[in-house]
Amino acid sequence: MIVNQPIGVIDSGVGGLTVAKEIMRQLPNEEIVYFGDNLRCPYGPRPFTEVQTYTWQMVRYLLRHHDIKMLVIACNTATAAVYEQIKEALSIPVIGVIHPGARSALKESHTRHIGVIGTVGTINSKAYVHALHDIYKNVVVTDLACPEFVPLVESGDLNSRHTRDVIRERLNLIKHDPKMDTLILGCTHYPLLREVIKDVVGDKIQLIDSGEETAREVSTILYHKNIKRKLETKPHHIFYTTGSPSIMGMIVQNWLALFPEVNTVSLEEIEMIG
Amino acid sequence: MIVNQPIGVIDSGVGGLTVAKEIMRQLPNEEIVYFGDNLRCPYGPRPFTEVQTYTWQMVRYLLRHHDIKMLVIACNTATAAVYEQIKEALSIPVIGVIHPGARSALKESHTRHIGVIGTVGTINSKAYVHALHDIYKNVVVTDLACPEFVPLVESGDLNSRHTRDVIRERLNLIKHDPKMDTLILGCTHYPLLREVIKDVVGDKIQLIDSGEETAREVSTILYHKNIKRKLETKPHHIFYTTGSPSIMGMIVQNWLALFPEVNTVSLEEIEMIG
Repeated sequence: MIVNQPIGVIDSGVGGLTVAKEIMRQLPNEEIVYFGDNLRCPYGPRPFTEVQTYTWQMVRYLLRHHDIKMLVIACNTATAAVYEQIKEALSIPVIGVIHPGARSALKESHTRHIGVIGTVGTINSKAYVHALHDIYKNVVVTDLACPEFVPLVESGDLNSRHTRDVIRERLNLIKHDPKMDTLILGCTHYPLLREVIKDVVGDKIQLIDSGEETAREVSTILYHKNIKRKLETKPHHIFYTTGSPSIMGMIVQNWLALFPEVNTVSLEEIEMIG
Repeated sequence: MIVNQPIGVIDSGVGGLTVAKEIMRQLPNEEIVYFGDNLRCPYGPRPFTEVQTYTWQMVRYLLRHHDIKMLVIACNTATAAVYEQIKEALSIPVIGVIHPGARSALKESHTRHIGVIGTVGTINSKAYVHALHDIYKNVVVTDLACPEFVPLVESGDLNSRHTRDVIRERLNLIKHDPKMDTLILGCTHYPLLREVIKDVVGDKIQLIDSGEETAREVSTILYHKNIKRKLETKPHHIFYTTGSPSIMGMIVQNWLALFPEVNTVSLEEIEMIG
């Protein structure tokens, strides 16, 4: 039965695990198959056509090996680059991380002055600006690329003095609009820097975690499509990585408190699929 | 074009205006046609079969007079009584207030001990309990009917000593579970008592406003169905009531800061439709 099939979650690396974790928390009965393209991570600074190709390779791999009932693109850069195309092409529901974040920001903001931070790829695409204007044309959006943030997270440096200095210096560039009351964390790595970002921007600005919102949207769509998992057995999540399975396994164990099945996929294998 | 048609919002009276207001705030480009059955309000204490009949009458009236693209049942009692039936019967998307509230509570709660307050009809139906268990079977739900709350709101007595005493006395009955960290306001009138309820239950319990969450879900479904309004003209909202148009007009003006078009519908007229 399609309802008992897993939800596919793809990301350039481990950032999307924050989204997977939220899906597991909000929907503990659903099964996930996760694909992280760690070997080619990060996607943020890459040309868009390359991000499109890489993302499609992950999608095709998952579709070939699992009868997934829904696809979640848990990476802002990939969503910005290729979400519309994939949504158009597949017959299953496809959820990206950008629209849920935009909707949530419009719910939380009272001034309708909204900030967005993300990778160079995400910010240059203007995907958040379009998503916000598409709902409300008069919203005032200030956006800023933060190319230093992902490397800080990937190096595990979440709260050193250096990290705080880098974040403070970068975010000073977005603080010029005194009416801004909401800031979208437009990259799945950023929630790991949440405390430092909160300290820098202050209490008056509400932070929106696109990942949390995406998980809720997954819940909404499963319900309205009537495809919630019916089995009552404990879900068995599966992880794929193009990188090191032991590193992926360790991170999953630390972040998700799971002893996961992690499989390696070679680049040759996914490039061959097309 | 269907995309430019209004969203129908129905309620037993004025409580659903809190939902309509949130839709207007989160989706300022959408047009709403609102139906309030003020003459037969409240629905909370009525038998379910009666609530079903009354709700269907509003739905049929709206469908006959407006080519609505979506229906929002902005009343917890009506949602509990007849949501599944209406969703099944109509070809347009139908959104009730119960599932969005349940999903949101599961997002916010960390202990998975969740409280629900509502009318006698809503609580007796166990609709929230089912919606919560349907997503996560191990959630612990404590629910409580609060029959005094709607009359307090309807009488405009939102913050007197009497109101605070009544709310304190009633909510003391739900405070026995020390692990409860989230409380669903399972009636669209209750957000108007939010401050008093907050004072009584304390800071450690997060309040979930089903109306806010419903508006966000409307946004999600409009997007995924690709039926957002494309016209850029200012939306013209229309209101119907079975009660006094001048009272409805005054309340809309106060709550929604609109000078509304309010039309009266006689009971004979909606009973005739069936």
